[in-house]
Amino acid sequence: MKKIGIVDTTFARVDMAKFAIDELKSNITGYKIIRYTVPGIKDLPVACKILFDEKECDIIMALGMPGSKPIDKQCAHEASIGLINTQLLCNKHIIEVFIHEDEAENDKELLWLVESRAREHALNVIDLLFKPQSLIKNAGKGLREGFEDAGSLLD
Amino acid sequence: MKKIGIVDTTFARVDMAKFAIDELKSNITGYKIIRYTVPGIKDLPVACKILFDEKECDIIMALGMPGSKPIDKQCAHEASIGLINTQLLCNKHIIEVFIHEDEAENDKELLWLVESRAREHALNVIDLLFKPQSLIKNAGKGLREGFEDAGSLLD
Amino acid sequence: MKKIGIVDTTFARVDMAKFAIDELKSNITGYKIIRYTVPGIKDLPVACKILFDEKECDIIMALGMPGSKPIDKQCAHEASIGLINTQLLCNKHIIEVFIHEDEAENDKELLWLVESRAREHALNVIDLLFKPQSLIKNAGKGLREGFEDAGSLLD
Amino acid sequence: MKKIGIVDTTFARVDMAKFAIDELKSNITGYKIIRYTVPGIKDLPVACKILFDEKECDIIMALGMPGSKPIDKQCAHEASIGLINTQLLCNKHIIEVFIHEDEAENDKELLWLVESRAREHALNVIDLLFKPQSLIKNAGKGLREGFEDAGSLLD
Amino acid sequence: MKKIGIVDTTFARVDMAKFAIDELKSNITGYKIIRYTVPGIKDLPVACKILFDEKECDIIMALGMPGSKPIDKQCAHEASIGLINTQLLCNKHIIEVFIHEDEAENDKELLWLVESRAREHALNVIDLLFKPQSLIKNAGKGLREGFEDAGSLLD
Repeated sequence: MKKIGIVDTTFARVDMAKFAIDELKSNITGYKIIRYTVPGIKDLPVACKILFDEKECDIIMALGMPGSKPIDKQCAHEASIGLINTQLLCNKHIIEVFIHEDEAENDKELLWLVESRAREHALNVIDLLFKPQSLIKNAGKGLREGFEDAGSLLD
Repeated sequence: MKKIGIVDTTFARVDMAKFAIDELKSNITGYKIIRYTVPGIKDLPVACKILFDEKECDIIMALGMPGSKPIDKQCAHEASIGLINTQLLCNKHIIEVFIHEDEAENDKELLWLVESRAREHALNVIDLLFKPQSLIKNAGKGLREGFEDAGSLLD
Repeated sequence: MKKIGIVDTTFARVDMAKFAIDELKSNITGYKIIRYTVPGIKDLPVACKILFDEKECDIIMALGMPGSKPIDKQCAHEASIGLINTQLLCNKHIIEVFIHEDEAENDKELLWLVESRAREHALNVIDLLFKPQSLIKNAGKGLREGFEDAGSLLD
Repeated sequence: MKKIGIVDTTFARVDMAKFAIDELKSNITGYKIIRYTVPGIKDLPVACKILFDEKECDIIMALGMPGSKPIDKQCAHEASIGLINTQLLCNKHIIEVFIHEDEAENDKELLWLVESRAREHALNVIDLLFKPQSLIKNAGKGLREGFEDAGSLLD
Repeated sequence: MKKIGIVDTTFARVDMAKFAIDELKSNITGYKIIRYTVPGIKDLPVACKILFDEKECDIIMALGMPGSKPIDKQCAHEASIGLINTQLLCNKHIIEVFIHEDEAENDKELLWLVESRAREHALNVIDLLFKPQSLIKNAGKGLREGFEDAGSLLD
């Protein structure tokens, strides 16, 4: 049975995992979810590494909400590099679901964005794990997670 | 038989792989193409790592279209570092074919640039794999992929 | 018996470790603390690596106070990348406790912030080591170490 | 017999390798040169890795001419990090010979700079490989490759 | 017998190693110094790696003087990342002694700073190698190498 890791933070201002897990449950069966919560986004890489190595996860969603200050941007950058390195060490995908606080104009839009992006990336996880052909079919379609798709330049 | 990996994204706004594959087919025979599509450019490094380790690719084209916002530039930077690390881990070339949305003045030029750069880098892949001497012959010629060649300072 | 590493610097302007250790002692028993002090924050990663590999620490707190100049910010960035890499090499958590001098308006607030953040991160260490379920319970709660919690967007 | 790798790009606007090789030939005998040309500077790290691992080079010159745009600076940064990592993986020196297009006021000066820096770094390669004591003798002398030496503060 | 590596550059404008070695000799006996000089600061990481792996150094001082231009700052950043990675690969300390040319107001102050910082970091090397307890005693004391100590916030 496939194992999907869900790693998130106490720093985030929404329970992002809830949306991701709900989306997974609405779409697939026959898999196991492993939860892991850490304080902040810079703690995500090693949490993913541990889930791959010790819990045998097949894929992981790493969810976080970096703040809007320059130091927060730098933390997100460091976390992203760590997440990419983790994937290279384990030969497995981590889908990074980061929402930057300044991506939205207000709390209401931010909340919408978090749910929307978490759900759409949960679908990416399903595709990577069970339906890679459907990603190939969507290559170059200008898909976006959260906000509206940019669409193809050819449309 | 040599295996060429073609890795691209659903984020890109053009099916970049189509041009790359067409150019390969127009120029060489006796090789196999392995496709792999991921959501975004930060998913490219591990996809390449998997193609090298599990599908025994000999070389890979990693195609992507970063957006024009600062966060997109940072993502491209993180992806590029990951792609270089992947090459060092596998001792094989990944030709990164990134087109930044703000490289072109409008959608028409952007589309032209994508096709042109993808095709010219496909030729680089062929040279690296089958004709390394032709790259040596062009050393220092100021070649550019997509836009016009800068040319040699000695010309 | 679990071993908690406490790594700090002579560069910091407060004995951060004192607060962290005091908080640990106030909350748990049956563990061992291993101290290690280095000159500056860029010396922290290898100190942590040595504590994991040679002293068998189960988790480490890395405490530092970067200055406010651009070069200090760059040092903090380099140290953070190194700390993340160390965790990936050892599959164990390092809780980074950095206080930037320009986070506070004056020395009094800075001192308060150092103590507050060190103590709250000590509690994170306890949770990661002994009570991971309590972190899951707080996922998405907008917790902050030091300054007031940002709170959940849903409250 | 010692093997010196010479890795360069088709992106560069001068055949930098020509100057480097000429300088080597003018100064030493009893060694072998291995050429390798890649499209751009981000392809240099893996080319060096391959030359070390598969062609048993003892030292490598990595020659490139980054452009003057911000994206070019970023590419140079990524390439440099990759070149340093390659050295750490192989325990051998790579002498990076990069000339940024905006280092010179015009094409004539740029051409002079390329030749001058390539030749002076070729001498560094000779010293590292055959005469490490002569580098120690010049420690702290404010040497520069290409432009005039800055000189010692004590002179 | 302990071995201390001293790695420096021909780019630096002062023989930094002289001060470091003099300070070591004034304070301890019964150790061996291994010198290694490279062209620039980006050559320091692999030089340290070689000294650890092939000359069995127990600790290394990496001395350099980055220039004041943006490209020099970037080189220092790349070198620092490489030095941290080297330490993680070898589980041994490298004390980075960098003096940026723009840290001082004039050449006289710069020269003073170089000597002062090199000597004070030599004492750090001695502490790390022989007297780690004295570093713990100075934790949080706001020590600085070169310029005046910032001191403790509690004083």
